[in-house]
Amino acid sequence: MAIVLGPNQYGKAEVRLLHVSRDDATHVIRDLNVSVTLSGDLTATHLSGDNSGVLTTDAQKNTVFAFAKEHGVAEIEDFALLLARHFVESQAAIGFARVTVEQYPWERLGGHSFSRSGREVRTATVSHDGSDSWVVCGLHDLTLLNSAGSEFWGFARDRYTTLAETTDRILATSVNAQWRHARPAPAGDGWEKSYSAAREAMLEAFARTHSYSLQQTLFAMGKAVLDDRPELAEIRLSLPNKHHFEVDMSPFGLENHGEVFFAADRPYGLIEGTVTRDDAPPPGKAW
Amino acid sequence: MAIVLGPNQYGKAEVRLLHVSRDDATHVIRDLNVSVTLSGDLTATHLSGDNSGVLTTDAQKNTVFAFAKEHGVAEIEDFALLLARHFVESQAAIGFARVTVEQYPWERLGGHSFSRSGREVRTATVSHDGSDSWVVCGLHDLTLLNSAGSEFWGFARDRYTTLAETTDRILATSVNAQWRHARPAPAGDGWEKSYSAAREAMLEAFARTHSYSLQQTLFAMGKAVLDDRPELAEIRLSLPNKHHFEVDMSPFGLENHGEVFFAADRPYGLIEGTVTRDDAPPPGKAW
Amino acid sequence: MAIVLGPNQYGKAEVRLLHVSRDDATHVIRDLNVSVTLSGDLTATHLSGDNSGVLTTDAQKNTVFAFAKEHGVAEIEDFALLLARHFVESQAAIGFARVTVEQYPWERLGGHSFSRSGREVRTATVSHDGSDSWVVCGLHDLTLLNSAGSEFWGFARDRYTTLAETTDRILATSVNAQWRHARPAPAGDGWEKSYSAAREAMLEAFARTHSYSLQQTLFAMGKAVLDDRPELAEIRLSLPNKHHFEVDMSPFGLENHGEVFFAADRPYGLIEGTVTRDDAPPPGKAW
Amino acid sequence: MAIVLGPNQYGKAEVRLLHVSRDDATHVIRDLNVSVTLSGDLTATHLSGDNSGVLTTDAQKNTVFAFAKEHGVAEIEDFALLLARHFVESQAAIGFARVTVEQYPWERLGGHSFSRSGREVRTATVSHDGSDSWVVCGLHDLTLLNSAGSEFWGFARDRYTTLAETTDRILATSVNAQWRHARPAPAGDGWEKSYSAAREAMLEAFARTHSYSLQQTLFAMGKAVLDDRPELAEIRLSLPNKHHFEVDMSPFGLENHGEVFFAADRPYGLIEGTVTRDDAPPPGKAW
Repeated sequence: MAIVLGPNQYGKAEVRLLHVSRDDATHVIRDLNVSVTLSGDLTATHLSGDNSGVLTTDAQKNTVFAFAKEHGVAEIEDFALLLARHFVESQAAIGFARVTVEQYPWERLGGHSFSRSGREVRTATVSHDGSDSWVVCGLHDLTLLNSAGSEFWGFARDRYTTLAETTDRILATSVNAQWRHARPAPAGDGWEKSYSAAREAMLEAFARTHSYSLQQTLFAMGKAVLDDRPELAEIRLSLPNKHHFEVDMSPFGLENHGEVFFAADRPYGLIEGTVTRDDAPPPGKAW
Repeated sequence: MAIVLGPNQYGKAEVRLLHVSRDDATHVIRDLNVSVTLSGDLTATHLSGDNSGVLTTDAQKNTVFAFAKEHGVAEIEDFALLLARHFVESQAAIGFARVTVEQYPWERLGGHSFSRSGREVRTATVSHDGSDSWVVCGLHDLTLLNSAGSEFWGFARDRYTTLAETTDRILATSVNAQWRHARPAPAGDGWEKSYSAAREAMLEAFARTHSYSLQQTLFAMGKAVLDDRPELAEIRLSLPNKHHFEVDMSPFGLENHGEVFFAADRPYGLIEGTVTRDDAPPPGKAW
Repeated sequence: MAIVLGPNQYGKAEVRLLHVSRDDATHVIRDLNVSVTLSGDLTATHLSGDNSGVLTTDAQKNTVFAFAKEHGVAEIEDFALLLARHFVESQAAIGFARVTVEQYPWERLGGHSFSRSGREVRTATVSHDGSDSWVVCGLHDLTLLNSAGSEFWGFARDRYTTLAETTDRILATSVNAQWRHARPAPAGDGWEKSYSAAREAMLEAFARTHSYSLQQTLFAMGKAVLDDRPELAEIRLSLPNKHHFEVDMSPFGLENHGEVFFAADRPYGLIEGTVTRDDAPPPGKAW
Repeated sequence: MAIVLGPNQYGKAEVRLLHVSRDDATHVIRDLNVSVTLSGDLTATHLSGDNSGVLTTDAQKNTVFAFAKEHGVAEIEDFALLLARHFVESQAAIGFARVTVEQYPWERLGGHSFSRSGREVRTATVSHDGSDSWVVCGLHDLTLLNSAGSEFWGFARDRYTTLAETTDRILATSVNAQWRHARPAPAGDGWEKSYSAAREAMLEAFARTHSYSLQQTLFAMGKAVLDDRPELAEIRLSLPNKHHFEVDMSPFGLENHGEVFFAADRPYGLIEGTVTRDDAPPPGKAW
């Protein structure tokens, strides 16, 4: 029996980069949070402190900034592909790279003035192993609420079940979604169009679906994305059930007909699921 | 010499209330965070545990919910005025009440479907002392950025000053603003219109002002609000300087002409100031 | 009528400084978060962008680091006094400075190894106006809980009061306390001893007091500090009531005798008060 | 081609439970955050809204509270095992349960008085599939710092590498560790003893190891735990490199000999790795 090193990886996390395109009077900005993870043959550094195979995380940070200068940041997926391939191709010891980009949305106020839109964070996670590349896109912190069209009844009952059945409840969630592209290239209309359409399909499905459970809404949202976007192989959704409890007004002699709710923090339900094509290409090292 | 009780107050903080107006098929929602603070003759409870003058914070919470049912929540300022006056008028021991409301903005997706807009949080702070009422409105978490039109030079220099002068820097801040109404009533066009116009004036001033310091931008923003809204007596702004440092690319043989920036977390500058009319009515207990 | 500049201040917030005393093999570390606020005659920078009176916030940051090198950081109060006086004395335009220091506690693991103790954050806020100095010390994030010895009954009742009276509840809070020294110098046994003794007196009072309200506990805690520390003039306490609700087990056929509680996040009670000597020197610009 | 449901799970997250053992005058408290995840045959609820197989997350929450009453909470691992097995055994539709418990440490002030120790959060993650159970223990938010005994040099260099080599740097991290027990039962001396010894071994290895990289320290910490605790099969560590940059004082005419550091927030290095026995039993569904 021996004690040995198992899987390992390292990198620089959360490089906060603002890129400004000043090509004309109307500036374009990209506000990003970039994280790099590398793995490969790094046993020596773990066991003996031999760092000859280690590209420093400081250099990884520098590369993110330098590539933004040299190549610009038109689409975050392309920027991440460029970085991931660079690290694997340029470093002998590195066999795998994953680059994750968060993009914060801004609204334009003027030619060089912007207001941050807090709507949601767009994400791209790109992986490269020397031969193949994988692209996973997504978003988080997209908070949605239906004030009608949501029921929950007919569930299992045991000794500890006290929840009342309802045919009218608030359904609210903060969407965390990631969808895998079948190939590491955008559909004909580009990454941005693919992202916006997937987002729109989710929103539309959330608003349209008459819900009997958040699970059902999750599946409807995932299916809507895949129906709309043939370039996507699968989508993974993590949906907290942000409970809104109808306040019991009977002690005050009032009747509350679905008008006043307490928005609870914790605990919360957490519904997670994958929606996939049955002939999706294997995920490889995408996740 | 004796040890005595000084100023004191108590209340329920952060009552998370969702109100749904279901009067017709198109629902209207108000998503609020309400805090109540009361003060008065509460020496007995501090010194001897005699709670006969204490309206429980639990009852304060219940009142928030019940008033939302009984009166609706059309405008947060009116809702807060109603609550503040109620607590003082109904409780013999309570001489002063302050009610603070945060409102989270949502965008409409459909008749009963909504997406939370992360833009900024709207606030109202209402105070009432039995005779007079005061209304302070505002917002926080409104993040703004200018990618041009900002200089900073000609500043004082001492032994520890190393900052380079610049005629072109990123100017970014997260606006925290509170403006005091001269009277506890809206202008003719209502609270919502007053809020939106004040917000708009700030955004417009931020985008328009060619800045030589964040202090100058602060004053321009405050002045723009007062110029536009005669019903306001003063405005207080707290503006963190969200530093974006131009990355030095010379070690990589690259030139960075204001294109690539590192967005720093801490430390940050913090610029705070009041802009006021010189004939503003005294603030009383507004703040 | 004119629109004019009112009170204003600026500075560098949250300078994260680690100081290591390496005088012998046993290192001593100080892990600090330092914020500087300056005010004075800064109208020109607000109105015209003339920055000649502005000591940059970058220089303020540099000064914090440089003073740590030049003077060490033995006691945070002395370090803050040194900084506050320096800014006022060295800058013609600056008439007032406030320096706030947060100190994060660490436990020793070895001669140069440390583990961060998450217990509480110690604070010092020092103000200087060119003539006088004021020192306010304190702490925050000190979380305390009594599982017995806490009652709450005999409170006022109105239409919205539904809370049951209790002679046995959980009392929990996260202490936020600030105490003002009568003079800007420590008692004979030094700042650290004064701090530790004040902290100890609060803890002891919290544990010892049979409580009929959190207000009563607040006063007992404040009085214990002043009783013990003659160098202190007053203490201000802000105590959230971290509610722990006894879970109703009757639907499951169980009886819960004060054993199982739900720890709620929001809303929470917030109890705030000052305990003072009736002959305390006036606070001046301490707060 | 069809669009189908893939892997899915659901549950109640973050049930905040305080348990008080009042068996004698000296109370014992357990302050926990419990999350439950269930999976099984839940296709119907996703596709058609048939909820007959769904044990509500509300009932899961109730079960956590009720089990705390019925069985007490002596050790979090046993409590989690009890819950995980209960859900699988009592619900026909559920084939797999995972229960994660976070325990917040408190220090005793008196018989029924406590002060929360912020040191670290202890965790247990228990999985059960109807036949087998797995136990993973761990901790997070344990912040460690060495002010000497850390070097970093001899690393790879590319065009973007500018980092200076050093033979004396600050090494600081916030430990996130999880270790898998070979069997779902504690060693002879119990879960608590196993936890404390593993924690102690990590701390001791961090303090003792002369470090040439955080990777080397990671391996040393993991190996120390496995060397000391034969009941453990593997350990996974995620160690952010909390950078402390030596401040360049040369512009002020000062020399900084490793005394004054800037503690940076972002970006940070992130070093992750597994240390395992080469004959460890397979992990099954432990992770």
